Amino acid sequence: MSSLHLLPLLFLILLFPILTTPSPDRDRPTYPQFLGRFSHRKPNSNSNSYSYETRHYTQQLDHFSFIGDTLAGDSHFQQRYLLGSSDQWARPGGPIFFYCGNEGDIAWFAENTGFVWEIAPRFNALVVFAEHRYYGESMPYGSKEAAYSGAKSLAYLTSAQALADYATLIVDLKRNMSSEDSPVVLFGGSYAGMLAAWMRLKYPHIVIGALASSAPILQFDDIVPADAFYNIVSNDFKRESESCFNSIKKSWDVLEAEGKDQNGLLKLTKTFQICHTLSNTGDLLDWIDSAYSYLGMVDYPYPSDFLMPLPANPIKEVCRHVDDDSDGKTLAERIYAGVNVYYNYTGNYTCFDLDDDPHGMNGWQWQACTEMIMPLASNPETSMFPPYDFSFADREYECRMTYNVSIRPHWITTEFGGHNISTVLKKFGSNIIFSNGLLDPWSGGGVLQNISESIIALVAPLGAHHIDLRPSTDQDPDWLVNFREAEINIIEGWLSDYYHAIGASSSVLADRLEHAGVSSR
Amino acid sequence: MSSLHLLPLLFLILLFPILTTPSPDRDRPTYPQFLGRFSHRKPNSNSNSYSYETRHYTQQLDHFSFIGDTLAGDSHFQQRYLLGSSDQWARPGGPIFFYCGNEGDIAWFAENTGFVWEIAPRFNALVVFAEHRYYGESMPYGSKEAAYSGAKSLAYLTSAQALADYATLIVDLKRNMSSEDSPVVLFGGSYAGMLAAWMRLKYPHIVIGALASSAPILQFDDIVPADAFYNIVSNDFKRESESCFNSIKKSWDVLEAEGKDQNGLLKLTKTFQICHTLSNTGDLLDWIDSAYSYLGMVDYPYPSDFLMPLPANPIKEVCRHVDDDSDGKTLAERIYAGVNVYYNYTGNYTCFDLDDDPHGMNGWQWQACTEMIMPLASNPETSMFPPYDFSFADREYECRMTYNVSIRPHWITTEFGGHNISTVLKKFGSNIIFSNGLLDPWSGGGVLQNISESIIALVAPLGAHHIDLRPSTDQDPDWLVNFREAEINIIEGWLSDYYHAIGASSSVLADRLEHAGVSSR
Repeated sequence: MSSLHLLPLLFLILLFPILTTPSPDRDRPTYPQFLGRFSHRKPNSNSNSYSYETRHYTQQLDHFSFIGDTLAGDSHFQQRYLLGSSDQWARPGGPIFFYCGNEGDIAWFAENTGFVWEIAPRFNALVVFAEHRYYGESMPYGSKEAAYSGAKSLAYLTSAQALADYATLIVDLKRNMSSEDSPVVLFGGSYAGMLAAWMRLKYPHIVIGALASSAPILQFDDIVPADAFYNIVSNDFKRESESCFNSIKKSWDVLEAEGKDQNGLLKLTKTFQICHTLSNTGDLLDWIDSAYSYLGMVDYPYPSDFLMPLPANPIKEVCRHVDDDSDGKTLAERIYAGVNVYYNYTGNYTCFDLDDDPHGMNGWQWQACTEMIMPLASNPETSMFPPYDFSFADREYECRMTYNVSIRPHWITTEFGGHNISTVLKKFGSNIIFSNGLLDPWSGGGVLQNISESIIALVAPLGAHHIDLRPSTDQDPDWLVNFREAEINIIEGWLSDYYHAIGASSSVLADRLEHAGVSSR
Repeated sequence: MSSLHLLPLLFLILLFPILTTPSPDRDRPTYPQFLGRFSHRKPNSNSNSYSYETRHYTQQLDHFSFIGDTLAGDSHFQQRYLLGSSDQWARPGGPIFFYCGNEGDIAWFAENTGFVWEIAPRFNALVVFAEHRYYGESMPYGSKEAAYSGAKSLAYLTSAQALADYATLIVDLKRNMSSEDSPVVLFGGSYAGMLAAWMRLKYPHIVIGALASSAPILQFDDIVPADAFYNIVSNDFKRESESCFNSIKKSWDVLEAEGKDQNGLLKLTKTFQICHTLSNTGDLLDWIDSAYSYLGMVDYPYPSDFLMPLPANPIKEVCRHVDDDSDGKTLAERIYAGVNVYYNYTGNYTCFDLDDDPHGMNGWQWQACTEMIMPLASNPETSMFPPYDFSFADREYECRMTYNVSIRPHWITTEFGGHNISTVLKKFGSNIIFSNGLLDPWSGGGVLQNISESIIALVAPLGAHHIDLRPSTDQDPDWLVNFREAEINIIEGWLSDYYHAIGASSSVLADRLEHAGVSSR
């Protein structure tokens, strides 16, 4: 049995806004993340479920200036992408399904995005998973150490550069495969969903449509209420058990108080099976509240292993433990039993190591210190989390301290929009699916209503974080099967429209596509 | 009487693709330009026709990376903009008419874009003319000398950065004026027309529509035939006089041969009134063919003074001289008499100085060496110009020599599109007017057919380069008056739609706008 090994933050989800509260116990600068900080991931899993070839593309470091020409040797980097089999691809001209990599190792996303692999054969589509710059193996400056050495080398880790990477890669791929007419459909979940939606808006000449799953593109500025995220997590718990919600809500003060007692930290260390004695309660509370937020994201209706190995409906399971006051269990013991479902469902760990990335450097932290300023707050009226107000000034201060960089809090909305999105896109743009599950706390920043005939919001009341993109299972509920079918039908419509528009209806290509289930309209 | 003083190339129009032919006489690297190299411009004219306040905005040097944070003091620059009077502006929420500055001094564009000033009062609109980075007074690094000192400092002179400048400026302006609801309509001619169209496509959340006049957004890659430009100029001449066209077509060889005669260069120097004795015929031929191309652009039906003081229908006047073989004039003498109409219509000059910008540095040359790779060729079958084939390799070689920079020939189409534009934009995007005059050689790269109900092509068979944007005159032909009226109606429709969409129809604002001629639909 090993202690919980914490991977470098490299790409692991979620958010610690609470850490930014000025509490003396909680002063480390960490930021909202989609991928979990304390999450478990099997690195270099040998058993890929899907077959692909790993390739590299020589990518421009800076698409928007020509400074690269003056940098000796550093103007390009190797971007990794995974190329699915082309055996069944209707080439030339057949569809390309392109996953916009997000903040992590692309092989891991490929593994967890079964939907794309599963539906590709129906369309005779070629599958491409492209890695996001500065993640996985796609490191500028030759190595992760060099790329992450400071603000100067991290400078080019931005969303606009990543989109330009994808655009450039797609144009080059199509040219090299002599398949310039191929329509490209984008897929992405979470941050990658944001990228997919933005890319369809910015590069309509390169991609014909985008499925943006669980993409909180409205979680910027003051577009949505900052407290939505924690309210949703809280409701996920309340929905399972009101008493569970209340116990958790009460627990923060109780644990805080216990930590202040004589030998309190020692007792908490023991109760929560922490490997190294706690030096403050804050670290423990961070670890606990992270579990709840992640649980909101991965509250899937079947057993899963995305961030952690978990049972079906894990929040229900957590609450079962939190609510179980038999044997005179203390609140602390019940809370421990709850979070243990998240951190140790397999029972492999005998203690937990709260020491995360010793370098304090991960890509999302940089992005959250520059342009990904997504205000999150915890409202004591409605949230089971400790009260927390978001402050641009605090973020600015922390990012100055950490990276000596200034945040650009309004840049994302300037570059990509978000305010009044219905008015703006009602007669502009087309072919985007915004899919959201309402259990997912990120749905608070999602597009939940149709904007136009072809900018569609699909909402799953019982869905969690980009469940639609996950591999299908025998235990998928009917609503999920139908949800995916709706997405497939919409995508099929995009492809038909496209082939019709380029006059392919009577060609051999159209015949092949018809066999593949795409009819020309 | 002074010799023709040639301003530094700063922003002066037009193209010398012929200069890139490998002829030994013609080896200077110069590139397609919209604004004339040999054109005359009154600097710092004291008499502005329009009243505005000159302001400066602290602008981000690099919007797409955070490298600026690591540059000591160079991460920002002062961007100049001209702010029209707000006396009649329906504030807050009234329209803003925003001119995207192009490759030159913004005051000069403001002076030559009377249309915007003239129609603003009808809409109670606020007028803003924003200067393009690296032109006029909007110099990064503190001075033109520093900004233009080489590739490293010029690196941030790109179209995407310029668009981000405009986006950032607009957001800030509206916030500062507490008028976030103001709809912004873009205007631009030539390169600025390209910027206006691209900006509507990239920033629909910031601007509600764009009038893109004489914007050759298709003059990239192989989207349009490379010989269109010179064919159009040639047809402009043929249309006035077939013999004029033939004489010019014949003249290149004749002049080339004369230059090779004993004392030939001396004789040509004298015939063409060149101040300093020619050292090769190439310089002379460049000077001559530039005049023709500019004439195609400014072949306005009334006397004008855009690039040069000229009579109405200047090509007709040129051809009158080229065709006038009375008194036994030689072909060279007739050609001289023709180009003299362009270079010296006022008769102020006794000789011409072909020495242009001694530094060989101007902004457009840099842009043409990086992303603005617009292939132009002269086809001997149809053009009156010497044959010339465009070559990416030649351009690359020249730009390496001049700036030690590599061209990115496919970047503009990757970033902004252009291929299959009708298919791409048929169901994507809205509210763009592409206006073109068919006498204008740049119309060869323009959008000449409607793409959708609200991406409209307005074509004036007798129009030259962005004539619609010029100040109105007593001599405007009816077609021009009607053409502008059509534009005004379309813009009025955009504004009505916008106010209707934000629910302003019953507000005080709507009343005020109705008085200003904008009805809510």
